[in-house]
Amino acid sequence: MKNRVVELTKMVREKSPLVHNITNYVVMNNSANALLSIGASPIMSHALEEIEEMVSICSALVLNVGTLDRFSVEAMLLAQKKANEIGKPVVLDPVGAGATSYRNQVLSQLVNDLAKVDFIRGNGSEIAALSGVAITSRGVDSTVKSTAIVDVARELSIKTGAVVCVSGATDVVVFGDKVCFIANGSPLMEKVTGLGCSATAILGAFAALGEDKFESAVAATSLIAICGEIAASKCEGPGTLQLHLLDKLYNITENEILSLIKLK
Amino acid sequence: MKNRVVELTKMVREKSPLVHNITNYVVMNNSANALLSIGASPIMSHALEEIEEMVSICSALVLNVGTLDRFSVEAMLLAQKKANEIGKPVVLDPVGAGATSYRNQVLSQLVNDLAKVDFIRGNGSEIAALSGVAITSRGVDSTVKSTAIVDVARELSIKTGAVVCVSGATDVVVFGDKVCFIANGSPLMEKVTGLGCSATAILGAFAALGEDKFESAVAATSLIAICGEIAASKCEGPGTLQLHLLDKLYNITENEILSLIKLK
Amino acid sequence: MKNRVVELTKMVREKSPLVHNITNYVVMNNSANALLSIGASPIMSHALEEIEEMVSICSALVLNVGTLDRFSVEAMLLAQKKANEIGKPVVLDPVGAGATSYRNQVLSQLVNDLAKVDFIRGNGSEIAALSGVAITSRGVDSTVKSTAIVDVARELSIKTGAVVCVSGATDVVVFGDKVCFIANGSPLMEKVTGLGCSATAILGAFAALGEDKFESAVAATSLIAICGEIAASKCEGPGTLQLHLLDKLYNITENEILSLIKLK
Repeated sequence: MKNRVVELTKMVREKSPLVHNITNYVVMNNSANALLSIGASPIMSHALEEIEEMVSICSALVLNVGTLDRFSVEAMLLAQKKANEIGKPVVLDPVGAGATSYRNQVLSQLVNDLAKVDFIRGNGSEIAALSGVAITSRGVDSTVKSTAIVDVARELSIKTGAVVCVSGATDVVVFGDKVCFIANGSPLMEKVTGLGCSATAILGAFAALGEDKFESAVAATSLIAICGEIAASKCEGPGTLQLHLLDKLYNITENEILSLIKLK
Repeated sequence: MKNRVVELTKMVREKSPLVHNITNYVVMNNSANALLSIGASPIMSHALEEIEEMVSICSALVLNVGTLDRFSVEAMLLAQKKANEIGKPVVLDPVGAGATSYRNQVLSQLVNDLAKVDFIRGNGSEIAALSGVAITSRGVDSTVKSTAIVDVARELSIKTGAVVCVSGATDVVVFGDKVCFIANGSPLMEKVTGLGCSATAILGAFAALGEDKFESAVAATSLIAICGEIAASKCEGPGTLQLHLLDKLYNITENEILSLIKLK
Repeated sequence: MKNRVVELTKMVREKSPLVHNITNYVVMNNSANALLSIGASPIMSHALEEIEEMVSICSALVLNVGTLDRFSVEAMLLAQKKANEIGKPVVLDPVGAGATSYRNQVLSQLVNDLAKVDFIRGNGSEIAALSGVAITSRGVDSTVKSTAIVDVARELSIKTGAVVCVSGATDVVVFGDKVCFIANGSPLMEKVTGLGCSATAILGAFAALGEDKFESAVAATSLIAICGEIAASKCEGPGTLQLHLLDKLYNITENEILSLIKLK
């Protein structure tokens, strides 16, 4: 699996897939920069008038409900419908799932028998809430450990057919019976807004390759965790962390990946 | 008072209050990062459908009219109404007050006998315009010195019941009869967009503690000014200033605060 | 011409023109910071209710269709009409021209016999698409070399009366019969989202001076290219590039400009 992380990372750099993001206003800039840094090409567009054409020219669609409203939700639903129709992978970040009933209701429109998502990435609370588990919401923060909800994530994966990635001190990737634990990253990453959203955008780039879904999710999750770990070791705080992370996403080597990656 | 700055800063780190921001698109990312750096937890949400629930789970509400439009204004009014009803502190940043009649009209909806704000933070021009003083508008720049409008700020404080913070070379905090001058900061901070908005977001975190309002405003204002001063001394320009500021908001020590703070 | 670049850069710092931007959500923060770094003053506002007043107090209007939707388009059209009426320069960045038919249709509303633009800045694909040349769209990436479409840019300039700037490995500025090639910059600049948009915002500041249009465009284009080149030489990747670029836009000296600038 470790070699697949290296191979898939190289493929993203070579193919530079177009990734269409309908995402929140807080992280648009970071997400676009994260995609550019790994060698992918971001599209950020939400106008209903062009959404289907944009989906058609891109290789993956990323939906992030961070700052949802009636307009972005309409755009997301239309984009997802188109992506489903033409077989483009859809990646969902259920930011703040469980925080409000509106958020839950929108998520139930994006994840059901008629609306398909191929990848779901969130923190423990978000994945638990999306799975119908009652949680104490702290807004966009997690109150649930990623490793504590592997079974919940597996059920969600089986029910939806999606690869489910749960971020945390240890990241967990679940796809049906398969599970992978990734023990990279740094606690300081939680002090930068939207690094989870960047992880989701990066997942979009790996999804766009059209390779094995489980391996793609493990590769994307490992890549940002390893880069974050290296960046955290060189920075003085959350401000400089974000930049070193972008630099490292851009210049990480095969050797750095292989020497640091901790999969189980 | 100096020790209170240290104590309240520590309390923010320990309690990690949830702060709900309805703010402008330019600074959403910085404001969220500033809140995370001081140990608070940001919520950025503006959908009418969830705004009251979001207000309910947060400990303070920050309203910033920087890129206002009919949708954000509707969200702000509804959020403020809810916050007033359930007794959550409301912090207002009247960005660009005086620049257009629409901006003034919206601000008169947010600050009046029926709509309560607990803290107002702006530059000299904004505070003067909000107080009804005729100013020459330079958009979001200030044409009025903070120390020249202490009396105006006091009147605004008495009329509204809010603590009024006026940023400038010397920051001024006024609450009824009380006044505090904070002579920290750096002129370079004006060359980074939205550091005033970051100050307002940080004020939201201190407001969320529910401690003495005047002391909370002095503490929040001092903290970002001191961190900006340290960051400016290590940076090469406005690009690196912003990062060092976030780093310093994260790792500033009690000793740094006490040795640098200049209150009068 | 080289001395004019220095002179106009100095004029921006001295006059600090107000530049009104209706731009995309991805780059609002960077664009505002780029303007502040060169000494100009950014206004970011899109509310229909205040758009004409904002245009009136500013010295130039920048329109960027990166994340266009029905609301921003309405605001852009109204702002442009006002700017045309009162003789304020209008700068257009046709982000993603050619990617979708909606984008093309909106651009045809912004560039025609009744709607005047004074400056147009885009990459090769965008300028080609805006000129009606059939291109293979890669979203916001360019598939057309800037130097390959000098004739196309000239035709667009003659037809619209605008100065046309085409960014690329070599930047090209065309105004009627005049043409200037600028061989500064760094390939790494493409790995940071929105540096083209920053170039457009900076062009707005130079346009605001009301000096010779061709020289202003050459100066603006040279300034960011030279600063990007210096920043790229000191950075480790796209994350640190952006900061060093802002720092350099702030502190670049006359000597640095004159010693590095490569015009033809």
